[in-house]
Amino acid sequence: MITVVILGFGNVGSHLFKVFENTPGTRVLQVYTRSMSKETTHNKRFVSNILDITPLADVYIAAVPDDTIHHITSQLDFTNKLVVHTSGGAALEHCSNNNRKGVFYPLQTFSKNKAVDFKNIPICVEAENKEDLSLLTNLGALISQKVCTISSSERSKLHVAAVFVNNFVNELYHISEDILTIQQLDFNLLAPLIKETANKIEYLTPALAQTGPAKRGDKKTIRTHQQLLTTQQKEVYQLLTSSIQKRNISQDE
Amino acid sequence: MITVVILGFGNVGSHLFKVFENTPGTRVLQVYTRSMSKETTHNKRFVSNILDITPLADVYIAAVPDDTIHHITSQLDFTNKLVVHTSGGAALEHCSNNNRKGVFYPLQTFSKNKAVDFKNIPICVEAENKEDLSLLTNLGALISQKVCTISSSERSKLHVAAVFVNNFVNELYHISEDILTIQQLDFNLLAPLIKETANKIEYLTPALAQTGPAKRGDKKTIRTHQQLLTTQQKEVYQLLTSSIQKRNISQDE
Repeated sequence: MITVVILGFGNVGSHLFKVFENTPGTRVLQVYTRSMSKETTHNKRFVSNILDITPLADVYIAAVPDDTIHHITSQLDFTNKLVVHTSGGAALEHCSNNNRKGVFYPLQTFSKNKAVDFKNIPICVEAENKEDLSLLTNLGALISQKVCTISSSERSKLHVAAVFVNNFVNELYHISEDILTIQQLDFNLLAPLIKETANKIEYLTPALAQTGPAKRGDKKTIRTHQQLLTTQQKEVYQLLTSSIQKRNISQDE
Repeated sequence: MITVVILGFGNVGSHLFKVFENTPGTRVLQVYTRSMSKETTHNKRFVSNILDITPLADVYIAAVPDDTIHHITSQLDFTNKLVVHTSGGAALEHCSNNNRKGVFYPLQTFSKNKAVDFKNIPICVEAENKEDLSLLTNLGALISQKVCTISSSERSKLHVAAVFVNNFVNELYHISEDILTIQQLDFNLLAPLIKETANKIEYLTPALAQTGPAKRGDKKTIRTHQQLLTTQQKEVYQLLTSSIQKRNISQDE
């Protein structure tokens, strides 16, 4: 049995709480959250005073914004326990020196009201010593089939790559929705295309999966498109079109 | 029974051929393709001389690049038949005046070696007269559950919106792959995130689905990320980060 305390009950913390609650072999001893809700007030394991946190857990998981990791972990009233954060962007060193440091980074996007299946989510773990790494690996393996040891330096690259395929992709969805909404066209018309674009990438490399006017060098369509866009949308259109085209030029040469 | 001739055997033409072949109620009389392959030489229905095309089909579908639609359709050796194109970007008028014009636009991305399920693909149809529109609607309904009448002007907006969620999204996958490959990290680590990003958009609006450093205004992480990128990657990073942030500013105000 691996016992856990979760620090923070935002997008990541609440999903971790749910998955550990439903996973044999783990037990959540406590959850620390500053703002109690209806759901949490009646559950004695939820505490809003950081000094109420038990020193008896195997691992403390700080699922908080990057710039508060150090502040939260340095307030813990015990030493030499394993305290980890869940951030893709922050180095191992962000955890306070009072305790043993580690990282438990589930490589996924979490939104409060959207369930996720942890089984397929890569859990990237890191720790200062072998025993802690093995404990984090075991904990990860209880909820996911893909646990990998990733250094802080590798994780920062993985994180920026993840920003491109998640946050930036979602921003492109948003721009697309903006274009359709103003024309009173239904964004759902694009749902099958959005799905297929993501599915395709499991079978084809991005180079082979690419289609469209930029790839084809179809200048006429590109000009027509630009006329339909706002100044800001056009900026994104031009930069990504030229990004696609630069690849083809260098391939053709 | 609706009889069809397909002009062009590229990504779109070959998928249309396959789906019509497997759909009761349609028959492909001929396929016109300039470059015969092993697959097509032994099939008498494949012709490489446009003058060999039968005048007896109900509809002629030109699945060719936008800038060749007019050239191909004007070479057809008959008049007053229904000739349509499959382009999202081209207006109805791109078809030659020799015949009745229409559009049969499957809103999806097609790659040669990736099967697609037409059932969920919106087929956007347009025609100059009611009878032709009804024939295209019936033909669409045989292969898809979502047939909609869309004008050329609406279709051009739909098409540019599709470029954002498909070609540009795929370019972001490509940039992400570039970042990981140079670090010898496996792009497949991001597969669950890519899938979830696309799935989420069926349940949440892009505004609600957004997460990450740009949305949170996490300047420190943004600075760290920028240091990991090439000049070109950084340009895309900055533009999309600022695109996300502008939304939040206008929401907060």
